[in-house]
Amino acid sequence: MKKLFAEFFGTFWLVFGGCGSAVFAAGYPDLGIGFVGVSLAFGLTVLTMAYAVGHISGGHFNPAVSFGLWAGGKFEAKDLVGYIIAQLIGAVAAAGALYLILTNKSDFVTIGGFAANGYGDLSPDGYSMTAALIAEFLLTMFFLLIILGSTNSRAPKGFAPIAIGLGLTLIHLISIPITNTSVNPARSTSQALFAGGEFTAQLWLFWVAPIAGAIVAGFIHKALFDKE
Amino acid sequence: MKKLFAEFFGTFWLVFGGCGSAVFAAGYPDLGIGFVGVSLAFGLTVLTMAYAVGHISGGHFNPAVSFGLWAGGKFEAKDLVGYIIAQLIGAVAAAGALYLILTNKSDFVTIGGFAANGYGDLSPDGYSMTAALIAEFLLTMFFLLIILGSTNSRAPKGFAPIAIGLGLTLIHLISIPITNTSVNPARSTSQALFAGGEFTAQLWLFWVAPIAGAIVAGFIHKALFDKE
Amino acid sequence: MKKLFAEFFGTFWLVFGGCGSAVFAAGYPDLGIGFVGVSLAFGLTVLTMAYAVGHISGGHFNPAVSFGLWAGGKFEAKDLVGYIIAQLIGAVAAAGALYLILTNKSDFVTIGGFAANGYGDLSPDGYSMTAALIAEFLLTMFFLLIILGSTNSRAPKGFAPIAIGLGLTLIHLISIPITNTSVNPARSTSQALFAGGEFTAQLWLFWVAPIAGAIVAGFIHKALFDKE
Amino acid sequence: MKKLFAEFFGTFWLVFGGCGSAVFAAGYPDLGIGFVGVSLAFGLTVLTMAYAVGHISGGHFNPAVSFGLWAGGKFEAKDLVGYIIAQLIGAVAAAGALYLILTNKSDFVTIGGFAANGYGDLSPDGYSMTAALIAEFLLTMFFLLIILGSTNSRAPKGFAPIAIGLGLTLIHLISIPITNTSVNPARSTSQALFAGGEFTAQLWLFWVAPIAGAIVAGFIHKALFDKE
Repeated sequence: MKKLFAEFFGTFWLVFGGCGSAVFAAGYPDLGIGFVGVSLAFGLTVLTMAYAVGHISGGHFNPAVSFGLWAGGKFEAKDLVGYIIAQLIGAVAAAGALYLILTNKSDFVTIGGFAANGYGDLSPDGYSMTAALIAEFLLTMFFLLIILGSTNSRAPKGFAPIAIGLGLTLIHLISIPITNTSVNPARSTSQALFAGGEFTAQLWLFWVAPIAGAIVAGFIHKALFDKE
Repeated sequence: MKKLFAEFFGTFWLVFGGCGSAVFAAGYPDLGIGFVGVSLAFGLTVLTMAYAVGHISGGHFNPAVSFGLWAGGKFEAKDLVGYIIAQLIGAVAAAGALYLILTNKSDFVTIGGFAANGYGDLSPDGYSMTAALIAEFLLTMFFLLIILGSTNSRAPKGFAPIAIGLGLTLIHLISIPITNTSVNPARSTSQALFAGGEFTAQLWLFWVAPIAGAIVAGFIHKALFDKE
Repeated sequence: MKKLFAEFFGTFWLVFGGCGSAVFAAGYPDLGIGFVGVSLAFGLTVLTMAYAVGHISGGHFNPAVSFGLWAGGKFEAKDLVGYIIAQLIGAVAAAGALYLILTNKSDFVTIGGFAANGYGDLSPDGYSMTAALIAEFLLTMFFLLIILGSTNSRAPKGFAPIAIGLGLTLIHLISIPITNTSVNPARSTSQALFAGGEFTAQLWLFWVAPIAGAIVAGFIHKALFDKE
Repeated sequence: MKKLFAEFFGTFWLVFGGCGSAVFAAGYPDLGIGFVGVSLAFGLTVLTMAYAVGHISGGHFNPAVSFGLWAGGKFEAKDLVGYIIAQLIGAVAAAGALYLILTNKSDFVTIGGFAANGYGDLSPDGYSMTAALIAEFLLTMFFLLIILGSTNSRAPKGFAPIAIGLGLTLIHLISIPITNTSVNPARSTSQALFAGGEFTAQLWLFWVAPIAGAIVAGFIHKALFDKE
């Protein structure tokens, strides 16, 4: 149960911090944090909560990570459903908190697309569904290779949250223009629920591609890098 | 006594570095550091002084942190007053040093709002008192969850200042547009003293919301994450 | 064989992440990551994969690094060819993936120079061949001094990926305007293959200068810093 | 002798990387790294070389640091002259290399102020001599408090280069607009030699203020924080 609370708080923080920085601060005139700041924010949510509660739950905060760790033999299938539900509740609660703050802005009109993920017409820079599939698959695959490799018993102890958190920063530096960067179905779901419309119709891709990439990474790690 | 000096120097550095970067460098034409640079600066003040004097005083540099650690059972009530006074003196001294430098600028006219915190009309992007209360409460709550979690005996040793410092960077990346980001009553007080007027009238919120969030985090950590 | 797979994945990630961030996100209007974001991305590819697979292959991801480690007495000559081939395959595969994503953009016209390196007319800011030779030589020399020094038995354990990764970030912060920053013949080759034309004709410099700088660093380290 | 070579290479890298990033990349149109990038670059030169050769020489790379460590009882007076000469030679050699690269730019006209430090008319944002004295004194004082505290036997092992390097980043985030940030007489001297004119006439301040701040920090650390 403590593990599920840890996943709830971790995923809340990921969405509140990552999507929040995008919604509140990215486009502020002249001084805004831009994609660099949003990338840093997403990564730091994971770095900070992995140090804070990683020793409780393992610090997944992301259904694709849970699937990838299962495929890599580091997480039991029977725990998948509980973790994913806790992650989804945390993500949606955070989106609700962001909504509450945003609608208390003096010139509030609409949340627009919130920080939702999309492709085609909803891609920030007009990338197709094919491009989105390739990007989300490859990026989540490497995210899991980083997670599985840096938490391996042969890797230096204690540094994994730095590698994993800054790995998520890197992933956002690459791909915000492509899909607004998901690699995390819980994060995508929480935003699509509020953004609605077409964003909901595209949500499938941000479950399928990240989870597929994560599972492939789990198998690659187990086959190639796990043991001597 | 050494602990109080450590808190004095740490809080001086937090205000001098964090607020100083905002006042001197954020809006410099074309090359200015913007909100990303200010966020980084605030976080690095804590990262650096936590490594430098954290082993002396615990490295609070913030009355809300002291309250949160007390609520989490990691700090004794009898030390609260001394710590908070040392923090306030450090913060105000730093604001004085910033004032001295700023008024020695060739085209100096007014300090304006300095780096003070505010809501409503004084929010950088027009967020209401309600939005400010929610944001400051939640952000300080998670700040303390990071502090209590990353300094827990089960967390990797030595990494806490990285998690805590970069956690403060993250908090600023999210919320400078909302309240100019406080999560620290000493920091807010030091700036309001110089900015004066309406800023002083709003100072209550930047004591109430951060301390409330910190105390709630202390109780959550103790109940859920502290022991097996 | 596992080592070669590790080099393949690491170099793939270096090119996909570093060059990808440049191609997709650097020049995005208003919110783009600029040279700071690209510098961070290159460094984080190495930081993350060095933690993930550094304990498998040593984490070179760069023919110049392999040569420098050989010159420094830390890598056997008989392994050079295998490593460099794995690095080249990884780099070219990543360039292919970037090409696939980029050509699936709605307004795609041409890849232009991709993220290729160049001097003279192909230098981002008009630096001559002489400037490019000096810069690539010196930067790779210091990159290897950092690698050899931070992985030395007397350096703190576990921190080398941070020093090396952020060292590559630093190198990009200095020199993107000069040559678009190589210090890595595999990275340069992968981009020149797709950019073609004059870029291919200039590729020699991005093999010669980095490898020469790396070898000199290997000898300096061995002579001055390796043993008491 | 190895120590002096380590100081030579470290200070070369500090000036080549820090000042180089400013000269080559800060003001590049649209994509330039600005003060954030330059701040990061200065800090990363120290972070990287402190991991690489800090175990050889202690990693000062700065006459003010050598004086401060002497005042704090961590460095012998008899080694001061040798260290400072090695630092100056490294700094000037790096400035020469920057000059060589810069003059090999197609549209080169003048180096202007290079990356020299200044106050009054030569302050980037018009700060007076008094402001410069206060800023350089306080910033170097805190730089040494960070160095002495994070390398103290009670601080976590191995993290000092992170605290010290990112501390230098923070110092630049605060003060580039004030003096172009020195806190390092060797760095200032190397640039003034090439920038010439008024910059040379102001060089005294960037010896006096940093060394005074460093020595005061050494005494504070020894009196308050060094031993139980």
